[in-house]
Amino acid sequence: MEKLFIPVILGTAREGRRSEAAAKFMLAQVKQAGLETELIDVRDFLHKATEETFPGQEKLGAKLKRADGYVIVSPEYNHGYPGELKLFLDTFYQEYARKPFGICGVSIGPNGGVRAVEQLRLVANEFHAVPIREAVYFRNAADLFDSQGQIKDQGYEKFAKTFLDELTWFATALKAARD
Amino acid sequence: MEKLFIPVILGTAREGRRSEAAAKFMLAQVKQAGLETELIDVRDFLHKATEETFPGQEKLGAKLKRADGYVIVSPEYNHGYPGELKLFLDTFYQEYARKPFGICGVSIGPNGGVRAVEQLRLVANEFHAVPIREAVYFRNAADLFDSQGQIKDQGYEKFAKTFLDELTWFATALKAARD
Amino acid sequence: MEKLFIPVILGTAREGRRSEAAAKFMLAQVKQAGLETELIDVRDFLHKATEETFPGQEKLGAKLKRADGYVIVSPEYNHGYPGELKLFLDTFYQEYARKPFGICGVSIGPNGGVRAVEQLRLVANEFHAVPIREAVYFRNAADLFDSQGQIKDQGYEKFAKTFLDELTWFATALKAARD
Amino acid sequence: MEKLFIPVILGTAREGRRSEAAAKFMLAQVKQAGLETELIDVRDFLHKATEETFPGQEKLGAKLKRADGYVIVSPEYNHGYPGELKLFLDTFYQEYARKPFGICGVSIGPNGGVRAVEQLRLVANEFHAVPIREAVYFRNAADLFDSQGQIKDQGYEKFAKTFLDELTWFATALKAARD
Repeated sequence: MEKLFIPVILGTAREGRRSEAAAKFMLAQVKQAGLETELIDVRDFLHKATEETFPGQEKLGAKLKRADGYVIVSPEYNHGYPGELKLFLDTFYQEYARKPFGICGVSIGPNGGVRAVEQLRLVANEFHAVPIREAVYFRNAADLFDSQGQIKDQGYEKFAKTFLDELTWFATALKAARD
Repeated sequence: MEKLFIPVILGTAREGRRSEAAAKFMLAQVKQAGLETELIDVRDFLHKATEETFPGQEKLGAKLKRADGYVIVSPEYNHGYPGELKLFLDTFYQEYARKPFGICGVSIGPNGGVRAVEQLRLVANEFHAVPIREAVYFRNAADLFDSQGQIKDQGYEKFAKTFLDELTWFATALKAARD
Repeated sequence: MEKLFIPVILGTAREGRRSEAAAKFMLAQVKQAGLETELIDVRDFLHKATEETFPGQEKLGAKLKRADGYVIVSPEYNHGYPGELKLFLDTFYQEYARKPFGICGVSIGPNGGVRAVEQLRLVANEFHAVPIREAVYFRNAADLFDSQGQIKDQGYEKFAKTFLDELTWFATALKAARD
Repeated sequence: MEKLFIPVILGTAREGRRSEAAAKFMLAQVKQAGLETELIDVRDFLHKATEETFPGQEKLGAKLKRADGYVIVSPEYNHGYPGELKLFLDTFYQEYARKPFGICGVSIGPNGGVRAVEQLRLVANEFHAVPIREAVYFRNAADLFDSQGQIKDQGYEKFAKTFLDELTWFATALKAARD
C-alpha cells in the first residue's frame, strides 16, 4: 500500500517563532511513524490579502490536494490563530475536503495554545475536513526546546504517537472512502 | 448491506419547544433517505446532575452504541446549548467515537441556532466523533411550522438532503473503517 | 462606600467535584479582598428542564440582581460547561446585565478548564454582561488540594489577586454607570 | 463634554468586499449618533507577518489609543475572521484595554457572519476589552446594497441604533472609570 502523505504546516511567520521547533519535532515524528511528509512553512507563501494569487500557489495547491491529511502547528496569538495562517488556509478549500486535520498548539504560557486550536477546529469544519480530537499542546515553549531546537521533554514523543495514531486512522478511513 | 442506524436526538425538554417539530421533520427526512432511525427525546431521560444513573440509561447506551451516526436537533439558549442536552450527552463517551454528528440548530430569531451548533461541534470533537460541516438551520422557528407542526417552507427538504448526503457519506466511511 | 457584593457560583453538582475546593478557595480570596460575598452552589438549585420554576428561585433571583458581579467556578466537561450550570444560568437574564463575570476553570488535566471558560464567556456576552479577561485556571485539580480541601500551591493567591483586581475594577466602573 | 471617539474598522482587504458598504453605513450611523468617528481600513495597513513594523503604524497606534471604543466590521471567511484583520488587531494590545468592541458581521449567506463575530469576541476579551452583546449582522450582503453602496433595507438603521446605544453606554461608563 502506498504511504499516506501528511504534510506539516508551520502556521506562523513571526521572527523568533517557537513553533518552528515544534513543527520540526512533529515532522520527525511523522517520518518515524512511516508516513510521507514535508514541512510547509507559511513564511514561504506570505502575501497581502489584496493579492489574489501568489508565487508558488498552484504547486502548493496540488500538494495540498495530494495530501491525505495535515498536521498544523499553530501558536496562539491573543486567544486566536495567526493572521498569516488564516490567509494561507483561506487560499484553498476543496483541497481539504474529507481529510483529517490534526492541530497542534504552541504557547509561551501553560495552556499550549488550546484556544487557537479550538478556533481552528471550527475553521477546518467549514472545509468539510475532520478536526481530530487528539492534539499535541506545546506548553511553556520558551523552555521546552534547547538552543539547537531539540525538545527537552521526551514525554512529547508519546503525545505525538497518540496524536498520529488517531490521525492515521482517520486518514486511512477517509482515503478508502474517497477512492 | 445493512441499513445505517441514525437516531435523531431532540435536545431540549422545555415546554413549548419549537425544536420538537424540527426534530420530527428531520426524522421523516432520515426515513425517506432509506436509513433506520428513531427519535430520542432528552425529555425522556431527564435527571439531576447528582444522579449518577437514571432509568433506562443502560438501554439508551446500547442504542447509542449501535448507532452509526447521530442527528442532533438543538435550540440555542443564550448563545449556547441547553443544559439538559449537555447532561444527556455527558452521560456517554465511547459510544460516540468515530461516528459522525450532524447538528441542526433551531432559533426564534434569524440565525438558526448557529452559535449553539458551533459549541456542540467542539463538544462532539472531544468524543472522538466527527462533527460534519453540513447543518440544517431552522430559522424564525415560531413561524416556520403550522399548527400541526408541519414545516411551511419546502426548501428545507433540500437542505436536509444535502445534510443527510454528507452524514451518510461519513457514517458509511467510518463504519467500514471501524469494522 | 458600600461594599461590592460578588457571590461565588459553584457550577457543578457532581459527586466528587474538585471544583468545590476551588470555589471555597475563591470565596476566601474574595472575602480577603474586602468584598461582600457568599457561595451559591448549583447543587442547591437542581431542577429538571421541564420545571419552569424551582424552590428558592425568587430569593435566588433577588440575590443575583443585588450582586455587582460574579465569580463562576466551572469544571470543563467534554470541552464544554456542565449542563447543571447552564440550566442554572439560563433561569435568569436581566439580573446579569452590565455586570462583570469572572470565570474560573477547573480540570483534572493541565489546561485548567480553559475551553469551558471560553464557551461561558460567549454565554455571558448574551446576558449583556462583561466577561473579564482575567481568570484563575485550577489545573491538575486532583493534586492541587489536600485532604482538607486546602490549596497546596500558594501561587494561586497571586493569580486570584490579579483576577479580583480586574473584577473589582469592572464591578466598580459598571456600578457607577448603572446608578 | 467631549465627544466620544469611536472609529470604524473595516476588517477585510479583499477585492469586491461587500463589507466596505457595510462599514460606510455604520460610519454614517455613528456620525448621526453625534459621535466622533472615522473609517480605518485594514487595506491601508497591509503588511506581511514578518514585518514587525509598517508605514503609519505609530500614528495608527496613537489613534487607536485615543479611541473610546471601536466598531469592527468583519466578514466571515470559512467560519472565522479574515487573516488581514487578525494581523491588524495583533499589532496593538494595551491601546484596546477597558474599551468596548462593537463587532458587526457580514456574510453573503443568511447568518450575517455570526461565527466570525463569536471568534472575534474571544480575541477582544484577551485585549482586556469589552465585547458588547449587541451586533449588526449584515445578511445576504450581495443583495443588501444597491450599486451606489446604499443599504436597501431601512430596518438596519434601527439595528444600528440599538447597537450604538449599547456601545455608547459602555464607552461612557469605561471612559469615566479609566479617567
